[in-house]
Amino acid sequence: MADNLAEPSKSALKKAEKQAKMAAEKAAKAAKQAAMPIVGGKKADDIIGITVSKADNFPMWYQEVVLKAEMIEYYSEISGFFILRPSSMYIWNTIRNWFQERIEAMDVEEASFPMFLSSKSLEKEKDHVEGFAPELAWVTKAGDKDLEVPVAVRPTSEAVMYPYYSKWIRSHRDLPLRLNQWNSVVRWEAKQTTPFLRAREFLWQEGHTAHLTEALAGEEVLQILELYAGVYEQLLAVPVVRGRKTEKEKFAGGYYTTTVEGYIPSNGRGIQGATSHCLGQNFSKMFDITVEDPAPKTEGAEKAPPIHVWQNSWGLSTRVIGVMVMIHGDDKGLVLPPRISKLQVVIIPVGINKKTTPEDKTKHYDQLQELKATLKKEGVRVDYDIRDGYTPAWKFNDWELKGVPLRLEYGPRDAEQQQVSWARRDTGEKGTMKIESIGSEIPALLEKIQSDMYHKAEAAFREHRLVINKWDEVVPALDAKNVVLIPSCLSEMCEDEIKNSTASKSEAPEGLAEMKAPSMGMKSLCIPFMQPEGIVKGETKCLNPKCTAMAEKWCMFGRSY
Amino acid sequence: MADNLAEPSKSALKKAEKQAKMAAEKAAKAAKQAAMPIVGGKKADDIIGITVSKADNFPMWYQEVVLKAEMIEYYSEISGFFILRPSSMYIWNTIRNWFQERIEAMDVEEASFPMFLSSKSLEKEKDHVEGFAPELAWVTKAGDKDLEVPVAVRPTSEAVMYPYYSKWIRSHRDLPLRLNQWNSVVRWEAKQTTPFLRAREFLWQEGHTAHLTEALAGEEVLQILELYAGVYEQLLAVPVVRGRKTEKEKFAGGYYTTTVEGYIPSNGRGIQGATSHCLGQNFSKMFDITVEDPAPKTEGAEKAPPIHVWQNSWGLSTRVIGVMVMIHGDDKGLVLPPRISKLQVVIIPVGINKKTTPEDKTKHYDQLQELKATLKKEGVRVDYDIRDGYTPAWKFNDWELKGVPLRLEYGPRDAEQQQVSWARRDTGEKGTMKIESIGSEIPALLEKIQSDMYHKAEAAFREHRLVINKWDEVVPALDAKNVVLIPSCLSEMCEDEIKNSTASKSEAPEGLAEMKAPSMGMKSLCIPFMQPEGIVKGETKCLNPKCTAMAEKWCMFGRSY
Repeated sequence: MADNLAEPSKSALKKAEKQAKMAAEKAAKAAKQAAMPIVGGKKADDIIGITVSKADNFPMWYQEVVLKAEMIEYYSEISGFFILRPSSMYIWNTIRNWFQERIEAMDVEEASFPMFLSSKSLEKEKDHVEGFAPELAWVTKAGDKDLEVPVAVRPTSEAVMYPYYSKWIRSHRDLPLRLNQWNSVVRWEAKQTTPFLRAREFLWQEGHTAHLTEALAGEEVLQILELYAGVYEQLLAVPVVRGRKTEKEKFAGGYYTTTVEGYIPSNGRGIQGATSHCLGQNFSKMFDITVEDPAPKTEGAEKAPPIHVWQNSWGLSTRVIGVMVMIHGDDKGLVLPPRISKLQVVIIPVGINKKTTPEDKTKHYDQLQELKATLKKEGVRVDYDIRDGYTPAWKFNDWELKGVPLRLEYGPRDAEQQQVSWARRDTGEKGTMKIESIGSEIPALLEKIQSDMYHKAEAAFREHRLVINKWDEVVPALDAKNVVLIPSCLSEMCEDEIKNSTASKSEAPEGLAEMKAPSMGMKSLCIPFMQPEGIVKGETKCLNPKCTAMAEKWCMFGRSY
Repeated sequence: MADNLAEPSKSALKKAEKQAKMAAEKAAKAAKQAAMPIVGGKKADDIIGITVSKADNFPMWYQEVVLKAEMIEYYSEISGFFILRPSSMYIWNTIRNWFQERIEAMDVEEASFPMFLSSKSLEKEKDHVEGFAPELAWVTKAGDKDLEVPVAVRPTSEAVMYPYYSKWIRSHRDLPLRLNQWNSVVRWEAKQTTPFLRAREFLWQEGHTAHLTEALAGEEVLQILELYAGVYEQLLAVPVVRGRKTEKEKFAGGYYTTTVEGYIPSNGRGIQGATSHCLGQNFSKMFDITVEDPAPKTEGAEKAPPIHVWQNSWGLSTRVIGVMVMIHGDDKGLVLPPRISKLQVVIIPVGINKKTTPEDKTKHYDQLQELKATLKKEGVRVDYDIRDGYTPAWKFNDWELKGVPLRLEYGPRDAEQQQVSWARRDTGEKGTMKIESIGSEIPALLEKIQSDMYHKAEAAFREHRLVINKWDEVVPALDAKNVVLIPSCLSEMCEDEIKNSTASKSEAPEGLAEMKAPSMGMKSLCIPFMQPEGIVKGETKCLNPKCTAMAEKWCMFGRSY
């Protein structure tokens, strides 16, 4: 299996990527030249399918899926940018609406701040900004005139927003201040970009809130984290582990970071899902965001000093879509969970051929219409495919490639027996169903598909999350596509050391994170909130044999994105 | 009245703007220093109110309203940019949801294209781009490295999107292709910026569609225009005139432009509301977007040449909010139509004072709670204001400033009589209402407010839209804050001439469009679809005395934004 091959070279990866793009472009061109409709569909069969298997070449498989399922288009004008096509935007908007409804209930309000920040505001928060500096896109000219002061496109909006928090927060009565915005940010990555997972511009939401106390801020951090987990688990059918980042991996300039971490079975790598940060008072001190102490004064006591507010920031990006694709997709293409699929059910007429009379055909199509109407009434997102000149087999492939969760087939024989035939996209399972009951059975089946997809992914993650007590078992566990929970002292130095000692010697040059086969060293993913038993404070040692410290917690490590 | 004063100089305007900002900042500072709560509220009264009257200094009034009603914050880091605060975003999202629902029903899909365009794509459509070139923001550096090829932030996305239309549209079966995106665009204006009306970055939606025939494209242009009219009329209570732009005023590079045009009674100026363009085949020729002719071939005939698709583009921006503010606001501040106001009803307790026992106060506040619950159940967006340390009068002013459509007052005497007192924000009208009927009467009253606001604005526009047949009446009509409908030959040269001949001689320097008192020359606003009678083809002359051509249509002209 490719996963166990040595690290591919950078040029080999670039070549593979190029080949995938060229193949897709060639296919598009061929389809155009073929001057549709293609009778028989044989020719098109060759074109639309996925050409590599998920097991053999996972990165290339992924690129083909997102491209051919029409989720993404490469923006060939500027590298590292992608176009999100309607099927992606449908998913993103479903997530957006779900999340928006819930944060509104928490009284988070929406705002829109400018996309640029001046070099002046950047200076205020040097520590935080240092990490972003190499990725800032600078506007230096407007028209043909040089700007007096260049401005950077936001990589995130702390520096844009917090000067106004200082202005707007006048009293403890103005707290909590909770603002969220849905926008895009730009990080001019030098690393290899990958659709959804790492792009130079991406869509996200960023929430920024201010509270009177640490406890109030901390409560919100967890509420939001739970919503992020809900996006993955309830909408995308993707299991995640909730936890806290180590000091090494937390948000630069923040106080602590909580995270939901996912797992990609195909290569055994962990992937950060979304993060909810408590910034503590670090930014409120930099940006001078204070309120008077609302506690009643003791008589004769000196006036209490102003309180720096406690802040949080939290963000969820279109990366979630990529994680979902990687987990559920298969060699036929995309597999979408019903709750986020724009089209949940596609009805395909079968058994209509040259011998069918026009009257019979019309009658049959009228019945399709009725099936659709019945399902629509039940809130199912459904359509039928009566494109002429394509065989049913071609249509099956096309909709499988695009990930539609459930296919219904309906032919004259089905009509006779008052039934429809169905096929699940996730398992390939097939069956028939009486027409009189589709209004109740199809919605139930869709929910079952959603639930089965989640449980399958959840089992994969659970089985590959190993609790390990012997250092010698760590690297073999990683090589067998697991992530590991080990007793850890949680120190930054120890983590650096672990990363080095678990890496294979033939490591590829930097800048290839996305495409690396799993011979890289392992990183800490999170300190899970749900801790296994077995660590005795002051007795259990940190598992790293080169570390002499005591273990604080079980920490989840893994090769990762 | 200030409207009749001579044109203010640029420096005077800058100064006025600066003063408004400084006053607001001073107020904010003072409030902060005052260490809330302010007992008695007298001090705060001075601070929060609008300090200039709409009639005396309309531009400064406008700036104060949007700032003090907390719709906008000036982004002091970079000039020409504004922060949209939650009350603005609530309005924008209401519009967004309303419009999105309707275009989805038309099968318009959502997409997200990158925010940058390369200089290469720009070269393809030079004519169109020429108009935007001076306003393009150029990213030339990433981190500390110069980009090999600079990229511009999109001022609009034709050049970003259409290369992919060429790729995706392979056959007439791929038509219509209808994509819309909600994003922000950047136009680095040299002109004076004004919140909502003209900003260097603004939120909008841009729809871009491709059709097989001119007729199909034309049909959609009008459907969308009608939705734009609906946003103004049904949501914002703002009347508009539907029409077509003249050749001079149409979208650069397009075929024809349709528009909804508004009118600002305070200064008698017209304002473009939103535009829906038919691009014809101009862009499809530049970007090579073609399909095979689907018409059946005549036997023996040569293969028909490929057809260039017919395209439309259409956009609606946050400008709509500014128009709404200018039309409905008054000397107390903002006046919001109920349908787009985040808070429709505010309940303020009155008659609670030092003599009220704690028990009576609690009981009274419980009753407020009940009133709120009753209204909430009916779908009314309602809250009460029980902030301590503010007088009812202070609260009245505060909510009037923020434009809440309806205020309910509730005191012990109201409680005795089982009634609430109400006050309309738009007219100041007051009355009482039995508590038992608020569930039905309040929603009805809100709808009446919405309708009355529209009809008042509609009457103002109608009365100031004069059909004029004598040239000598034109300038006096403009001076009396009218827009005019005149017989016009519609030629570009004639329009230029009209603009010059209707301008006062003491015209201010260029770059002050927003702030100009109405002594500027008039421009064509649109050729209204609803034409008055009276033009006889080949007989009626163009009204411009220096023009010898015959009139084609009644054309609406006015001083304008």
